[in-house]
Amino acid sequence: MPDRRFDIPPLDEVAMAAARARQASLTKPLGALGVLEDIACRLAGIQGTARPSISRKYVVVAAADHGVAAEGVSAYPPEVTAQMLANFLNGGAAINVLARFAGAELLVVDAGVASDVPGDTAALRRVAVRRGTSNIVTGPAMTRSEAQAMIEAGAGIARELADAGAQVIATGEMGIGNTTPAAAITSVFTGRPPELVTGRGTGVDEAGYARKVDVVRRAIERNRPDPEDPIGVLAAVGGFEIAFMAGLALGAAERRVAVALDGFISTAAALGANGINPAVRDYAFATHRSAEAGHAAALERLGMRPMLELDMRLGEGSGAALGFQVMEAAVRLHNEMATFEEAAVSQRSPEGR
Amino acid sequence: MPDRRFDIPPLDEVAMAAARARQASLTKPLGALGVLEDIACRLAGIQGTARPSISRKYVVVAAADHGVAAEGVSAYPPEVTAQMLANFLNGGAAINVLARFAGAELLVVDAGVASDVPGDTAALRRVAVRRGTSNIVTGPAMTRSEAQAMIEAGAGIARELADAGAQVIATGEMGIGNTTPAAAITSVFTGRPPELVTGRGTGVDEAGYARKVDVVRRAIERNRPDPEDPIGVLAAVGGFEIAFMAGLALGAAERRVAVALDGFISTAAALGANGINPAVRDYAFATHRSAEAGHAAALERLGMRPMLELDMRLGEGSGAALGFQVMEAAVRLHNEMATFEEAAVSQRSPEGR
Repeated sequence: MPDRRFDIPPLDEVAMAAARARQASLTKPLGALGVLEDIACRLAGIQGTARPSISRKYVVVAAADHGVAAEGVSAYPPEVTAQMLANFLNGGAAINVLARFAGAELLVVDAGVASDVPGDTAALRRVAVRRGTSNIVTGPAMTRSEAQAMIEAGAGIARELADAGAQVIATGEMGIGNTTPAAAITSVFTGRPPELVTGRGTGVDEAGYARKVDVVRRAIERNRPDPEDPIGVLAAVGGFEIAFMAGLALGAAERRVAVALDGFISTAAALGANGINPAVRDYAFATHRSAEAGHAAALERLGMRPMLELDMRLGEGSGAALGFQVMEAAVRLHNEMATFEEAAVSQRSPEGR
Repeated sequence: MPDRRFDIPPLDEVAMAAARARQASLTKPLGALGVLEDIACRLAGIQGTARPSISRKYVVVAAADHGVAAEGVSAYPPEVTAQMLANFLNGGAAINVLARFAGAELLVVDAGVASDVPGDTAALRRVAVRRGTSNIVTGPAMTRSEAQAMIEAGAGIARELADAGAQVIATGEMGIGNTTPAAAITSVFTGRPPELVTGRGTGVDEAGYARKVDVVRRAIERNRPDPEDPIGVLAAVGGFEIAFMAGLALGAAERRVAVALDGFISTAAALGANGINPAVRDYAFATHRSAEAGHAAALERLGMRPMLELDMRLGEGSGAALGFQVMEAAVRLHNEMATFEEAAVSQRSPEGR
């Protein structure tokens, strides 16, 4: 399979200029809505209209297992990945609550879960090529063609949702052990050493944390991933759900659909997507700053500032679903506020005091 | 009128402990929802139940004019206060959009507007004792008894909303020139010099900014407010809507109703309320970090960290209304998520890895 670079269109500058002109006409000091104004104008550029809409929202949660979990890098046993998948399907997880609250549809994807998912799995989308990655301490997580297959699977789901009218897609994930490959990816793309981008994940103790930093370091030494070869990085030290999310973001951008990034692992996937085609950043919104140590570094590398500071570290797309509320507020303000003229409100003093 | 200290009950520790126990049982790593868990548990303590609710939300926007506007501290003419009040009543302002989005009711209060409010003012609540404060550069903004009257007016509205079932009240404001008294109040209560807590408000230019810092400095020198006498501070360098918001917060806390603080001016009012009775902080939530220079200092003095980082600087309760969404998400997660037992998800490994 040849490496695809994805054909991402530029933002519509005419629509963005029209949106900025509208923002200047609304009954508020220019710039007083801060980032909300930027969000509305960027969505205008994404959708190619001065009056964007964000009523069709999707959260995609991709789950997979990780060979590196055998190194004791997580506080939870690997079978929790499959159990949580069942929880997503049954509506009891955090992301179910937050997607309902945001009026978003939830799509649950098996991107490579090791255990059987208990219960009714009729709603589960299966794109897995293998039941969990290999241990990145002893070799690559997956082959290059497996990584490409997962990227294409993500892009395929994005296309499908775009056809269904999606205006924004959140990239969510679940996978016991997946903060470890996320830390390795972040280290490779940001150039920061493992100890600065490795966090405590779901809550390992001191000894577990030291072990985890060492595992990230050894995984990078063993695989020597090249940041100039992003698909190679995702294959060497990534995860199936991470490669899938990279493809999901790229596929959404290709179809002019906004992408809501979640926390550390979702953003690590965005680093991979950015390596494949940096134009994906025009379509992506950082929603929250995770409590995970490496998230700030990943966001900085992408040049993004998040909307929410809530010390969340759950994944599942939970922070992104909360970010949907901020994005929807931005669009509603943009579309529903009165202009100075409509409301007969005086503008700035002529002398500009 | 004697100084009232307000009778604010302590948080219900039993309800909070029960809420924390529930958080530990939900299908997520403990603490993974970060601040959202703290919000839910504090609301439990406020409402005295392990399962709090936040469906009854109110935004109160108090408007007033400021004698200090004559010093050229704002980019907008004073008549904009009354024009924006009409905009609130007509549903065209940012806070109308955000209150609708949050499912909150909006109450518009004339706390001392100088110009006549155009249009249909039947829905306007009038509590004003005077049409705008005196210029704080030449003397106190208002008398002590006027400040007490405004505090009582705010507390009275809080009682009325509590009787109507309010579970959270946002303290919003509008008043051309009011970042100047807010800066003076913040300087007095935080001990920081005027140049560190004075911002550009709605957007003054360089010369206007220098003038504004000088005005804040002169107002403090002229009035010499004593931070140990909070009502005196609000009278000397405050504003009618600021004293009103202080009373609104205190009255809400007295009736076990949560308070959502907005930006710089709302938080300056909270500094006054905190001086009158520091227990008000248990009931108050910082929602966003404003772009105004002094807001961070005020929040630090109150020991609060905001949820949102959006560089907003609009006022009206706009950031607080957006914060309602975060608070509601916290409560929904708390009440609607499945427990480990319900979902048959394995908990942490016994060895606590």
